[in-house]
Formats: sequence, C-alpha cells, structure tokens
Amino acid sequence: MVKRIDEVMPVIAFGGDYNPEQWDESVWLEDAKLMEEAGVNLVSVAIFSWSVLEPEEGKFDFSWLDRVLEILHEHGVGVSLATATASPPAWLSKEYPEVLAVQENGVAFQVGSRQHYSPNSKRFRYAVKQLVTEIAKRYKDHPALKMWHINNEYGCHLAECYSNESLQAFRDWLKKRYETIDNLNQKWGTNFWSQRYGNWDEIQFPVNLPTFYNPSQKLDYKRFMNDAIFDLYKVEKEVLRDISPDVPVFTNFMYEFKPLNYFEWAKDMDLVTWDSYPDPREGKPYRHAMHHDLMRSLKNGQPFYLMEQVTSHVNWRDINVTKKPGEMRLWSYSTVARGGDGIMYFQWRQGRAGAEKFHGAMVPHSNDPNSRVFQEVKQLGNELKQLDGLAGAHGTAQVAIVFDWENWWAVEHEGKPHNKLSYLDQVYQYYRVFYENNIAVDFVEPNGNLSNYELVVAPMLYMIRDGEEKILEQFVAKGGTLVVSFFSGIADAQDHIHLGGYPAPLRSLLGLTVEEFAPMADNEANTIVSNGEKSTVNTWADIIKLEGAKAIATYKENWYQGSPALTIHRYGQGKSIYIGTNPTDDYLDQLMNGLLQQLDISAPLDAPKNVEIVERVANDKTYLFILNHNTDAVTVSLEDGVIYHDCLQGKQVSQAITVQNTDVAILIY
Amino acid sequence: MVKRIDEVMPVIAFGGDYNPEQWDESVWLEDAKLMEEAGVNLVSVAIFSWSVLEPEEGKFDFSWLDRVLEILHEHGVGVSLATATASPPAWLSKEYPEVLAVQENGVAFQVGSRQHYSPNSKRFRYAVKQLVTEIAKRYKDHPALKMWHINNEYGCHLAECYSNESLQAFRDWLKKRYETIDNLNQKWGTNFWSQRYGNWDEIQFPVNLPTFYNPSQKLDYKRFMNDAIFDLYKVEKEVLRDISPDVPVFTNFMYEFKPLNYFEWAKDMDLVTWDSYPDPREGKPYRHAMHHDLMRSLKNGQPFYLMEQVTSHVNWRDINVTKKPGEMRLWSYSTVARGGDGIMYFQWRQGRAGAEKFHGAMVPHSNDPNSRVFQEVKQLGNELKQLDGLAGAHGTAQVAIVFDWENWWAVEHEGKPHNKLSYLDQVYQYYRVFYENNIAVDFVEPNGNLSNYELVVAPMLYMIRDGEEKILEQFVAKGGTLVVSFFSGIADAQDHIHLGGYPAPLRSLLGLTVEEFAPMADNEANTIVSNGEKSTVNTWADIIKLEGAKAIATYKENWYQGSPALTIHRYGQGKSIYIGTNPTDDYLDQLMNGLLQQLDISAPLDAPKNVEIVERVANDKTYLFILNHNTDAVTVSLEDGVIYHDCLQGKQVSQAITVQNTDVAILIY
Amino acid sequence: MVKRIDEVMPVIAFGGDYNPEQWDESVWLEDAKLMEEAGVNLVSVAIFSWSVLEPEEGKFDFSWLDRVLEILHEHGVGVSLATATASPPAWLSKEYPEVLAVQENGVAFQVGSRQHYSPNSKRFRYAVKQLVTEIAKRYKDHPALKMWHINNEYGCHLAECYSNESLQAFRDWLKKRYETIDNLNQKWGTNFWSQRYGNWDEIQFPVNLPTFYNPSQKLDYKRFMNDAIFDLYKVEKEVLRDISPDVPVFTNFMYEFKPLNYFEWAKDMDLVTWDSYPDPREGKPYRHAMHHDLMRSLKNGQPFYLMEQVTSHVNWRDINVTKKPGEMRLWSYSTVARGGDGIMYFQWRQGRAGAEKFHGAMVPHSNDPNSRVFQEVKQLGNELKQLDGLAGAHGTAQVAIVFDWENWWAVEHEGKPHNKLSYLDQVYQYYRVFYENNIAVDFVEPNGNLSNYELVVAPMLYMIRDGEEKILEQFVAKGGTLVVSFFSGIADAQDHIHLGGYPAPLRSLLGLTVEEFAPMADNEANTIVSNGEKSTVNTWADIIKLEGAKAIATYKENWYQGSPALTIHRYGQGKSIYIGTNPTDDYLDQLMNGLLQQLDISAPLDAPKNVEIVERVANDKTYLFILNHNTDAVTVSLEDGVIYHDCLQGKQVSQAITVQNTDVAILIY
Repeated sequence: MVKRIDEVMPVIAFGGDYNPEQWDESVWLEDAKLMEEAGVNLVSVAIFSWSVLEPEEGKFDFSWLDRVLEILHEHGVGVSLATATASPPAWLSKEYPEVLAVQENGVAFQVGSRQHYSPNSKRFRYAVKQLVTEIAKRYKDHPALKMWHINNEYGCHLAECYSNESLQAFRDWLKKRYETIDNLNQKWGTNFWSQRYGNWDEIQFPVNLPTFYNPSQKLDYKRFMNDAIFDLYKVEKEVLRDISPDVPVFTNFMYEFKPLNYFEWAKDMDLVTWDSYPDPREGKPYRHAMHHDLMRSLKNGQPFYLMEQVTSHVNWRDINVTKKPGEMRLWSYSTVARGGDGIMYFQWRQGRAGAEKFHGAMVPHSNDPNSRVFQEVKQLGNELKQLDGLAGAHGTAQVAIVFDWENWWAVEHEGKPHNKLSYLDQVYQYYRVFYENNIAVDFVEPNGNLSNYELVVAPMLYMIRDGEEKILEQFVAKGGTLVVSFFSGIADAQDHIHLGGYPAPLRSLLGLTVEEFAPMADNEANTIVSNGEKSTVNTWADIIKLEGAKAIATYKENWYQGSPALTIHRYGQGKSIYIGTNPTDDYLDQLMNGLLQQLDISAPLDAPKNVEIVERVANDKTYLFILNHNTDAVTVSLEDGVIYHDCLQGKQVSQAITVQNTDVAILIY
Repeated sequence: MVKRIDEVMPVIAFGGDYNPEQWDESVWLEDAKLMEEAGVNLVSVAIFSWSVLEPEEGKFDFSWLDRVLEILHEHGVGVSLATATASPPAWLSKEYPEVLAVQENGVAFQVGSRQHYSPNSKRFRYAVKQLVTEIAKRYKDHPALKMWHINNEYGCHLAECYSNESLQAFRDWLKKRYETIDNLNQKWGTNFWSQRYGNWDEIQFPVNLPTFYNPSQKLDYKRFMNDAIFDLYKVEKEVLRDISPDVPVFTNFMYEFKPLNYFEWAKDMDLVTWDSYPDPREGKPYRHAMHHDLMRSLKNGQPFYLMEQVTSHVNWRDINVTKKPGEMRLWSYSTVARGGDGIMYFQWRQGRAGAEKFHGAMVPHSNDPNSRVFQEVKQLGNELKQLDGLAGAHGTAQVAIVFDWENWWAVEHEGKPHNKLSYLDQVYQYYRVFYENNIAVDFVEPNGNLSNYELVVAPMLYMIRDGEEKILEQFVAKGGTLVVSFFSGIADAQDHIHLGGYPAPLRSLLGLTVEEFAPMADNEANTIVSNGEKSTVNTWADIIKLEGAKAIATYKENWYQGSPALTIHRYGQGKSIYIGTNPTDDYLDQLMNGLLQQLDISAPLDAPKNVEIVERVANDKTYLFILNHNTDAVTVSLEDGVIYHDCLQGKQVSQAITVQNTDVAILIY
Repeated sequence: MVKRIDEVMPVIAFGGDYNPEQWDESVWLEDAKLMEEAGVNLVSVAIFSWSVLEPEEGKFDFSWLDRVLEILHEHGVGVSLATATASPPAWLSKEYPEVLAVQENGVAFQVGSRQHYSPNSKRFRYAVKQLVTEIAKRYKDHPALKMWHINNEYGCHLAECYSNESLQAFRDWLKKRYETIDNLNQKWGTNFWSQRYGNWDEIQFPVNLPTFYNPSQKLDYKRFMNDAIFDLYKVEKEVLRDISPDVPVFTNFMYEFKPLNYFEWAKDMDLVTWDSYPDPREGKPYRHAMHHDLMRSLKNGQPFYLMEQVTSHVNWRDINVTKKPGEMRLWSYSTVARGGDGIMYFQWRQGRAGAEKFHGAMVPHSNDPNSRVFQEVKQLGNELKQLDGLAGAHGTAQVAIVFDWENWWAVEHEGKPHNKLSYLDQVYQYYRVFYENNIAVDFVEPNGNLSNYELVVAPMLYMIRDGEEKILEQFVAKGGTLVVSFFSGIADAQDHIHLGGYPAPLRSLLGLTVEEFAPMADNEANTIVSNGEKSTVNTWADIIKLEGAKAIATYKENWYQGSPALTIHRYGQGKSIYIGTNPTDDYLDQLMNGLLQQLDISAPLDAPKNVEIVERVANDKTYLFILNHNTDAVTVSLEDGVIYHDCLQGKQVSQAITVQNTDVAILIY
C-alpha cells in the first residue's frame, strides 16, 4: 500500500535537483554540509544519470550513487530518486537506432542534447524497464528514499514522433478505438476531400500534406501521442509499484503545456509536481498563480510540489532577466499558499559545462555562501521549517473554471473562423478577475463534479462531448450560476459540428441560438451597451437570436447593431450567462463582481491592490497568507476580534498587520 | 462538335459545389427542394468523390451518383459534372507510392488533405484516365449534364514536384526544347559559375543549392511544371472529347495565381471559370474587378463563370471576416457586369466535418431557410432569372493592359536590382486608375492583337521575346498610344540581358536609353517636377538619356537631379510614354486622365466616387450596370434623352436614377 | 623561395575578376584594350572555369585560356590566376555523389549554383589536386602570371557539412584532439544530460537535437569545419608550392565572416586579400574601415589587396542601392590608406546571363566607354599609377583591439544570460570611437604581441584560454592601459566556466569580482553616475564587488543601485579599466578620449567631422590621406612648417588644404 506524501514528508519539502555526477567526489561532502545549512530536506537525484549508471548495455555501476545517497542520508537530506530515463545514453541509439524519435521530414533526432527517444519504441521501453528494475531493486529500502521521480518533463521538447514504429502504433491505436475502418471513416468524415480509407495500412500521419489536415485525424494524433507517452510512464510506474509498492511515484509536469492531458495523468500519480519558470519581465502574476491552482485541482485539491523553479534566472530565453531580491521568496510563498507542499529548484549547484551552465542554482558558480542567491535560499529554507502542520492543508474555492485538454487541442486547430484565438488566453482572462479579487478558484474537467461550487465559468468550451451538457444543465438547474463564453458547444468529441444551430447542446441551457459568427479583424472593434453604459469589445461577435434568454448588453455598431452581445437565462433554480464577444478586463471585472456579490462569495480579507490573500485549511486551523507584491509596505485590516498567530514573526497579531514590500505574512487562526 | 456555353446554359448560371456524399441520403431531396427555392440551376458534383466512386482499384460504384443526378434533374437543376480527380484515394498512393508528389527535401507528400499527386506520374495519369473514362461513359448522355468540370484548382497547393520521375520528365522536357546539350548550355549561360552540363542526366532541379539559382534554369522549371500540369489536364480533356465530344469542358482557375499560364490554358478550354475569394477586410475592390477583366480576356472577351465564391466568410485566413448584408449580392453583380455568366459558390451545404467545416455555404450549419445567408442567396438567385438575354454579352474596352505569365515568373526571380518588386502590384497600380474612372479594360498577351485598342499599357514588361517589340512598334506607328513602365525590355525569353543599352528592344520606340538603374531604399524617395508641379516618387529611378524622346518630368533631387523621369516620344502616327520611376496614384490619375481625354475615351456615365459603372453589349441591346459601393444612396445622371429599362425594378427610367447603398441598378437601352 | 608581393606587383594593383569564357572570343581583344585605357594592371582569371577547363574527367582544355593570357600579356595586364576549384563541374557530382555537401536534414546540395562540395570529401580533394596540378604545370612560367588565387571565398555559402564522410572526419578529428574517449567526455562535460560516449562511433553532429546542443561539442564542430576547409586550402597550396615555389598564393577573405579563423589562415598565405561589399544605405563607414584594419592586422601589418568590390551596386540584397558619383573612388582611397595595395572589382564586364547579371561591373551592360561607371573606373585606375612607392608602406597604430574567432563562436552560442548579444557589434562599438577620432588601430589575437601598443581594448572576451590572462597581466604590469568589457573571462577553451567567481582569470588584473549578471530586457535601461554626471546604460549590468579596483561610475537605479558599473585598477606600472555594462557612444567617446589624452595618442591632424585622416609610412616618406566624406568642401589645417607634396594634384601644399566633397588628398612628407 503506497504511503501518503504527508506521511513520507510531513513538512514542507525544500531542496532541488542534485547532479553530483557532474562534480568531483570531493565536492559531495561540501554539498551535503551546505544543504544542511540551507535547510534542504529533499533532493532529486539521478534524473540524467542513465549513461553513468549503465555505461554499457546491461552493465550497471551504482557505486557512486551508493556513496551519494549515504552522504545525503547522513546529513538528513531525503531523496526523490529518479529513474534516470529522461535522456538515454549514446550506446542505446547507436545499437538500436529504432529508439530515436523521428521528425516530420523523416530525419531521426540524435544524441547530443536530451529526450531524443520515441515513446512508441518497443526497444526503448524494454531498455527503460531494465534500468528501472535495477534502480528500484537496489534502492527500494534505502532509508534516504522518499519517493520515485519518473523520467522528467515528459514531452517537453518532443511530443510528436513520426517514425515507422510510431506510424504502426498509431494505426493499432486507431484500430482499438474504432474497431472497423468504416467506423473510422465516419468518425473522421473522410468523404470530405476523398479521404476515405480502405484499410488501416493506408492511414498516414497528418503531416507532409499539401494543405489543411483533417481535424478529426489531427485530434486523434494528439490523443494517440498523449496516450503513447502516458503508456511509457506506466511502464516505469508498474515496475516501481511491483518492486517497491509503498513508495509514492510521480513525474514532473510543466507550465502552459498543451500536449499532455494532465487531468488524466494525475489520476495515475501519487503526487502532482510541476516546474514553474515565469519570466520576471512578464508582469502577469496571475499566470503562474493559475497554474498553481490548476495543479492543485488535478488531484481534487491534493497539495502539489513545485518540483523546479529557479533562484535567479534561467538561460533559455532570449534575455534572461533575474529575479530581484525577495521575489523568489515571495513567489515561493504564493506557491505554498495555493497548495504547494514542496519548494524545489533546478538545481542545487550551478553547472560548469553543458547547455544549462548559465541557468541559476542554489549554489552559484562562485560557490560563495555569502552570495545573495545562497543567502535567500538559506533564509527561505529555514523559514519553511516553521510552517509545521501546514503540509496537507486544503483550499477553499467556491468558484470553478472548466478546463479541458482535448478542447485545447481541438479549438486551436487551423481552419477556424478566427485563427488567432488562444484557449489559454481565454481562460486566463477569466481567471485574472478572480485572482485580482483574491477569490479562490478550482479547475474542473468538463465531466467533473460541480456540486461544491456556486459559480462555474466555461471559457470557449468549443468541444462538448455527448452528454457533457447534462452536467452543466444539472449544475444550473440545482441553483448554480454558469458563465459560458463565445465559441462554446460547437463540436463533438470528433471535432464534428453539433448540427441544429450553434451552440446546439447548450441552446436550451443558454436560451439562445447563434446564427452566425462575425470575427473581427485585428484593428476592428465594436461597442456594447449595458444599462446605458458603453464598453468596447473586439475579436469576435456572435449574432445571437434569443430563445428565452434576455440581453444583458447589445451591440451599438456595425450591421448587427442592436442585437444581443451578452445574455442571461434563468434555468431551473439557477442561471446561465452567455458572453458572445470579447469584453475588456474592466467590463469582466464589473460583471463577475456582480455575480460574486449575488452569490455572497468574497475574499478572505479586503486588501490593497497587488496584495495576494490566500487561505489554506488544515485539520484544526487556517493558514492565512498575505503577500505584498507592491514596492511599498501595505497595511491590511484583519477580521475584527480574531487573534492570529504570525508564524514567521512568531508573535500574535490582531486588528491590522503591516507587510513590507515584497514580503509575506502567514497568520494562523 | 462541342456546344457553345450559351447554348447549354442560355441563362446566368446560379448554384454551387454540391457534395451529397458527405450527407445522409435523406438530406438529398431536401437539398433539391431548397435549390429550387433558391433559383439554383447548376451545381458542381463529384469534385472530391474519387474515393467513393472507385473505393478499390478498378471497382466503381456509381449508384449513389446516379440517384443524386436523378433527383437534381427532377428538380430542374443542371449538373456541371466533375471528373473527381482532384484528390486521389488512399489506396492509390498506398499501392503506387510513385504517384505522390515530392517536396524539395525529398519527402513525399501524403494522403490526408488533398492534391498530393505528382503531375508527372505516369501511374497517376493512368489512374486518372481509367476513372474519367468510366465517368464519361456513364453520364455523357445524362439529361442533367451541362458540362465537364475537370479536376479542381490545378496547382493550388502544389505546383512544384521534386520526385525522381519529375526529374526525368524535366530532363525529357529540356531535351525536347533544346535538342542538344550544347544548346542548353548556351541558353542557360552555364559558363557562369562553372555550371556547364556534359549530358542531360547531370541536370538537377534548381533547389537544394548553396546559393542563388541559375535564373534561366528556374524559368524553365516553371515552364516545365506549367506544361506538366497542363498535360495532365489534357489527358482528361482528350478522354472527355473522345467519349462526349459535344459537352463543354473546363477547369476552374484561381486568384492572383502565378504558377499556371492561364492565357495558354484558356485556349484549350471551352469556358473560363475561376474562384474568387477577396478578403472583405482588404478594401481594394479593383483587385477582384481586375481579375474578372483578366478572366474575360483569356478567351478574347468570351464570358466566364465565377465558379466559386463564398456567401459569408472563408475559413483559411487568419481572421475570416464575414461579408456584410448585401455585399455578396453587390459583388456578384460586379462579376456579372464584367462578363460573368455564372455565379456559383463553394458550397451548397456547409460541411459538418473536415478542414472546411467553417467555410460559409449557401445553406448554413443551422439548416435554417430564414437565415440571413440563405435569404440573400435566394434573393440573388431569383433576381438573376430576370436577366434573360444577358448571357453571352460582350464588353466594350478601348484600353488594354499587357499581361504575361512568363514575365511574372522571370521578373520576380531573385538577384534583381530591387527584389521587393511585385509584378502584380505594378499591374494593379495602372489598372486601378481605369477602375476608379469606370474605363473598361481588356488584358492582352505581349504577342496579342492590339488593333482594337486606342491605349495600351505595359507595366514592368521585363521580358520581351525576340520580335515582340515589333507588335508594340506597329501599334504605335499606326497611331496607338503606348505606356511602358520601368524595368521593361530588359531580358529575352531565356532571361538573358538584351545587350546594347537598356531597354535595347524598346530604345527606338521609346526614343531613349537607360544608362543605370538607381533603386531606392524603403525609406527613400525623390521628387519629380512636371510643368512646374512637384510630385513624390519612390522605389526606382532610371537614369535616362534622351534619344529623341522629350522629358515629361525630371528629378529634383539626388545626384541625378535634372535628368528625365518620364518621357514622351512621337513614333509614326502615335506616341510612346515611358515611366522610369514609381509615381503616386494621384500623379498616375492625372497622367492617364490626360491621355484618355486626348483619346476621347470616357466612362459610360459620370458617377460619384465608389460607384462602379460597367456596360455589357448583347446582340441588340446594352446592359448598363450601376453598382453603389458607398454606405449612402447616390443619384446618377443618365444620358439625356435615353429611356432605359430597369431590369430589377421592372420599370422605365430616364434622366437620373437613385441607387441605394450597397445596391445595384441594371438598365437596358 | 616565394617572391614578395611588392616584388611581383611593385605598384598598386588595379583590375578585377575577368570571366572571358562567358563571352565570345571576339570580345577579348576589346576587353584588353579597354583594360589598358582604364589603367588595369591585374585581373583574376579562371575562378569559375573548372567545367570548361576540364569538361570531362581527366580531359583538359586550356586552349582558350592560353589565348586569353596571351592577349592580356600583350596588353600589359598581369594575371592573378585562379585554381578554378570554386565551383565543381556537374560531371563530378554525377559520377561521385560523395563530393556533395549535405544539409542538416540529410539532403545533399546539388549542382546549379556554386560551392556545393563537401570540404571533407576525399574524392573532391583528389579531383581538386588533379586540376590544380594541371593548371600549375601549364602556367607556372607564364610571363603574365603574378600570383595564384586559390579557390574563392571559402565557406561563403556553405561552411557546414553533414555528410557521412564529414561525420567520420569529425570523429577522426576528435580522436586526434582528445586521444581517449574519457578525455573527450571530460572536455565536453558529458555527464550533463547523460551525454557520455562509450566510443567514438557514437558521436553525432550537434544537429537534429530535440533541444539545446552541448556547447563544447558545437564549438569543436566549428573548429573542425574551419580545419576541414583550411586543409582543403592546404591541398591546393601544397601543389602550387611544389610546382611553382616562387609564385605567391592566397585565397580571398570576406566581410564579417564568422566561420573561418582568418588569423590562423593568414599565417599560411603570402598575401591577405578580401572582398568588401558595404551597403551604401548602411551609413556606418567605420564597419568597413574596421575590416581593412583587421585584414591589415592578420599578417602583422603587411598590406592587403581588396580583391573584390563593386563599381556601383550588387544584386544580392533586397534593394541594391547604387554608389553615388565619387563614392567608389573615395572608398577605394580609404582602402589604400588603411593598407590596401590592390583595388580590384567583381567584375570586369557585367554578365549577360546567370545569377549575377545585375551585379555592377567595370564595363556595364551598355558597353559604353562614356558611361559614368567606366569613367570613374578609368579615373581611379590612372590616378593610382601616380602613387608610386606606396606599395608596401605600413601603418602607425599605438592602439590595439583584441579579436578572436573562437571567442566569436563561443560567445554567440545559445543558452547565455543575454542571447541577443553580437560579438561584432561589441567590437564595432569600441572601434567606432577610434575611427571617428582618426586614431589608428591594429587588431591582435589574444595570444598576440602587445608590446607595440599603449592602449589595448578587449571587448567581450568571453573565452580566455589557460594562460592568456598572463599576456594581459604582463602588458599592464609593464605600463600598458587595458580596457575590458562585460562578459569577459568567463569560459575556457572548452567553453567550460572558469570557476572561482567571475571573471576568474582576470580578477586579480581587474581587482574585482562579478557576483551576478543582471541582463536587461529590450526596453529596460539604467543610469550610471560618474563624477556627478549621469549617462544611460542598457543591455547588461554586472553586479561588481570591488577587490582593489575603484569605481569610475555607479548605478543609480534598480536593486543594485550604488554598486560599481565601471572600475579602474592600478596594476604594476599600468592600469586596467573594466566596463561592466553597455554605455552610450557619447560616454565611450568621453572615456576613451580621456585615456588617449593621458597616453598622448592623437590623430595625425585635427579635422572636421566625417573627414578621415590616415597615414601610411614607406621607407623614406609618409603618405597622409585626407578623405572628405561630407557633402561640402572642408579645409584642414596642416602641420605648421611642413611642406607636403600633393600626389594627385602634383603640387606642393602647406599650412592648410581644401578638399572638395567626396574627394581625397594624398600628401607626402
């Protein structure tokens, strides 16, 4: 029986990727001592160690790793041990070229960076199984072992493969899905453009085409590659479960990552972990906050680990701006506030050679313990120790946003009315409102459980699979408030149109039909009028015919002036709002705040702008995080009559609290 | 003996692409009834039906098509029957991979979109012949059959192929053209860069080169591919002529399409048809007007069919803006006014699946007969019935513009003095003047018949083949007025320089020599002075030495100040004007209007701005089209003393007529 | 014993590329007469003649070349005879496809342009050897022969090859460099990302990778390709030395050309020659001036030949602006002033066919001897005859800039803190100051001899190989002034970090450590304060800790405000200045002028802006060039009491001289 994460690590985990094989053995002890000094309690080891663990086929050398784990354990540092499969060794592809992933032009990827394997290669899966078996057997009972880290950032550089073996696997996958070729023909609509297949062997990849692909085929290719990579993950997972059934397993997810359906993956993992690298230039803090909330939602609110972040700056952007003093700490606390039970970095010691040598680390090139970077690491590591009892605490959301990877794939296919739309940007647009108002948000799958929420938002939910509209209908019928934005309910699971007037499956719930789409050019806009007030809209206008709904706002210009832009419809005990255009942030703020007020949903505390307030609830107490993103100190009024314990200051506070710029307060009550 | 189009379709054709195989048989009857309601009299059937007509090699299934044609015929809808070869079935390329076209990198295109065949594949030509033979035999006497639609938009996605079979075909084509390898070496100038060939097998495609290609070789490759695709067309045409000699044949042309020499193709077609998809955002109505005029000119003024347009919006642009109410109708009448005897759409019923499901159609996804789109279709279809007698009517141009595909190919080759020049933009620049002044224009080939014109314009006619200058000389000598713009007369049919001072073949006609080209940088300009008035020029300055011509304008700035920019030269009974730079639209308006006045060429009627006036002349009467592109109504004065019949209003008018915004009047006199 | 260039050509060489094989024999005599008229004394012949010299394998035809050389010799025109290997004939790659270079995607380049060979092909080297042997034997004693021109612009289009033979050669090169695979693993840091190699055959090219390459591997690939092309050069050189040991050899270099380490190459050449094509639009005259100075520096100040320039305009830019009257002459004199003993053009007669037919030439298409272009050529050619005694004269620099090709390769690898930095732009930035102040500058390798200089500038010298810091230390210790700019001293010869705090090898010389890099975003800036004066900086900020140095300027903004931006450090008899950010041109002008003043380094004469003053010193006299780049005449005061001889005017001048716009004066004293 696999152990719970908060059994294995009952405190906030703190540490990073540790690559001792890149350094002389003489450095290892120094590393362990510095780790102790910095409050490190967990490191990820051996992620890129295949070529040193198995320098020749079937010949394993664990001696160095034995010593590393011993030293770490002696210094109280736990280990998240990797399966070392992230980057296969040169001998493997030399001996078995079929393990190499292949590009669209038929040219194989090569050894020389990392992740050059084909997820569909049987030979690769075999090699992986051999390696993981050896590692699992050797270290399953090691006292330093806390968890198994499978592979690394699956699909990061390479989520598509066009090898012959992948093509055969794609055909097999299709056979399994559709059973008969006639069924496939129907589900892919192959009578269009004479694409009918007579047998499975005629099917090709949706690349090297003279013009537009078949969107149903492309969607299935994306599903297939997600499944292929997921199957590869499962190969490792099964070995580990078999040999060390009690140790939790996971792989690390990524930021804004489209190719993998993380909702599906998370069900097969004991812990959600992810790697976060926001650009300090970006100035959109809601983006990584949203990812924290998404990651926490993947396993129904179970806390996640931030498996990688950087102390200072990365090296893979065009210009790698560094985090200012205090920012790394502040953002780390935002992570913790939103469900992060682990704060880990890539990497422990900054590399001397290789492609990432200018990527920041906990110990910089200077190896100077007095450096700004190490000092900030050390401060945070030692502070986190004071948050005893927090690990495992849950969030408090009454609002949910529907998020769906397959919708993401389908809605961004080419050949749409407006081909510059980004699903993520549409979701961000709605999330931002809640973020800036300090309203907690969960994410749910379209077929997820909505019963815990008062307000559900479904931005651009283009794909509605058969029956999914029922879930939304029931939610509203029972009193929920639903917000749906334009270009929703258009296509089915095959990316075929739901006939019968857009958005066919949602027409009765929304009380309207959309007769036409009127996308706007880049420099085009319109004005909507709502209670006599005007607001600009752009990007898209649905031409709406009301069928029970009432207009909230109407267009003021163009040939469709006077027709509804936003509508509201009472349905059962609840109501559904439809947003048939792209409003301004201000308009959305006003609209959503109205809804929140009606639903009596509010922030934990009132706070000035750019002050992030988040709560986590443990068994017997609530942790209230106050994060000041401003460049000046702020004073926040606390709840009247409550006496809070300020964790970091170690004292009691009430009435109000002043938080310095770029600083955080964590209050328990 | 093949029937004339106006015998087969003595009325304006109205309808669209019809793809019944994408729908359940139950929809077909509904389709036919809606077609009747909409005034549809012609539909294009089976364009993408190969994979259902021949689901296995040599096994044909015409049963569904039999039923479709029967239903259509019963409802009075004629059929333009396609040869179904536009998109080959998957089994063909699976069984015979040599039918696949190949990319520059040697990778074959694949099944999964359309048009993935190599025009040079003998096996593909064989398969095409088999299919067309079967179709022709089965339907040649079908009462619904009006004409044969060969393939579809040849070369649209794929006008170049780099297969081995294509390479062999290229060598054979060259052998036929040049007979000896020494001749080829001379005609390609291969002593440059050591490119001499010892035998035909050493010749490669002009791709995968470390740097600039040989322009003579590239030009021949373009000629070869045009010929290869044309030969493929002829394979089909010959089968059809052989089996059904009385039924007209055609293929559909495209917009701004460079790879195919449509002047050459049109000679081998019974009807010119083309597909027009102007972007409603573009705001350059002269562009598609010019294409109507060009299409009408391809067969010496014979009316053309607009074979495809869209009711609302396409789906293949980044942002697909929709036509506003009335625009589709107005633009359709502009087509008719400029020689269009057919108004057809892609497509009848909007698709449910596939790459074009968001492309507009006559019957939208909602299937709602009250939808705006269907209502506009129905109005137009029923109006067109009132234009009895118009089909076959001719235009009235006294002005011609020289247009040449080979010149297009050659002048846009790399390595020129100014490599951002667009041939089409230069032609548009001159056409626009006539369009905006409602002066009718024909297009002619460089070796075409100029005897019907008073004014001929040759924009950027870089290539002058041996002897072609004689045609221009004779035109001017006999009293014609010729306008030639810069970078004309530079190269011969091989893209070799005409030696002896630019523009050698035109020097005596123009009375000048161009000593140097002085291209201008993007942000550079100059000023010309003409009769004391100044005007800006950019892009290019010829350094002109007069040899009989007189300066119309001279440069005011830069080191060549004072030297001629535009010149005029009396030659025989006429005169030639040379424009050695790129003037403003205003300057060109003034210059050309002066010439038109001298030549007594004027618009049919005076009209406010953005009102398009065009005439078509039938045997016994003239149709006068007044199209109001403004957003307000306009009143146009009619010719004094003439009584006109207003076709659409069904009443007589005289003196003046008011036309509403986005509306049209068609007057007969 | 090879003859010195000024023995072979004791005057300024004047002429151009001559391609008679592209013209009828009847033109050759006309060419020779025009050459005489234009003062031509040297032409480059046979550069692209392989396919006519060896039309079939092993069959040579020199008859035409015999006649050409005879005619030239009769007209007093010397010949720089090419080895004709620049573009291999079609038969060679047809018969031996292994001679073709291969692209990253595995597709071979093809015949049809030029330079499509793989430098690593043994078969190609064999073919080259055969051809060069025949040419050398036949013409070694020809009286017209002045020098051997080997190949042409090596690597111009193709400095990377990915053929199998190249891969094997790469492995062999690595074996030679590293001896053991363990050594390679260490030097490439292959424990990073599991890149360890078990044997040489596992090594691949650093392309077709899913993500970032190994920078050590990439650097070695660049070294390998430089060596491969250099070896190919040596194959030819050895044949020539063997057969005609007294005739100087060279190949022609290029502008801003990164792939080849010209410092290394120059050591193996008897004459440095290069091809200069500045864009007249560019407006940065210091760029080509710098290249003249660099070319002169490649062989320790020995004069170079400008082997190619254009009379008017090239044809390979997007827009090919032409040089204004006088510019070609003025720029040619700037070349001579900076050490050019040859002024040559591509090409003599403008081509009729082929990719370069719109490239300007000495004789334009019109063949008109009165054309502006030919008249300017003729003037210059005849003027240069008056500069007797100048050939061989030397420069006068007291300032040197460190320049290093390997540093260029390494510092522009991906994955850096700031990935938009250009090494050349950083060097230009410092060179510009000296250029605009008419201070002579030499360039030196990092391990070069600095003893002749007072001031040495090392911009962005990222790579410091073991021990190279000693050269800089000794230079400063002995009294020199050194300026080093940011991101210097970071990596070693393998592109591994110098550990121990940036910039480790320079810390003691500079008296500081750089704790962190703070790259700035594109729109970001900071302000530095120096003696109370403010100035803007951008791009980069080093976070400097002083260790003996003093701050010259400190930052005024951002979290590192108050910390040093520029520093100065006394070291031995001299001082070192460190510039830890990117200052404005104005700031650099002020800083550098202060240093020059302290060091008593000044321009030969005071002059108005845009007047270029350069001196060359012959055995017994000094040539003073005064070049007026302004559009108005300028008057320049001469040194008091000195009487100069004005070469071009043929008279004496003193006190002051007036130089017309775009004109030059050459004074001897």
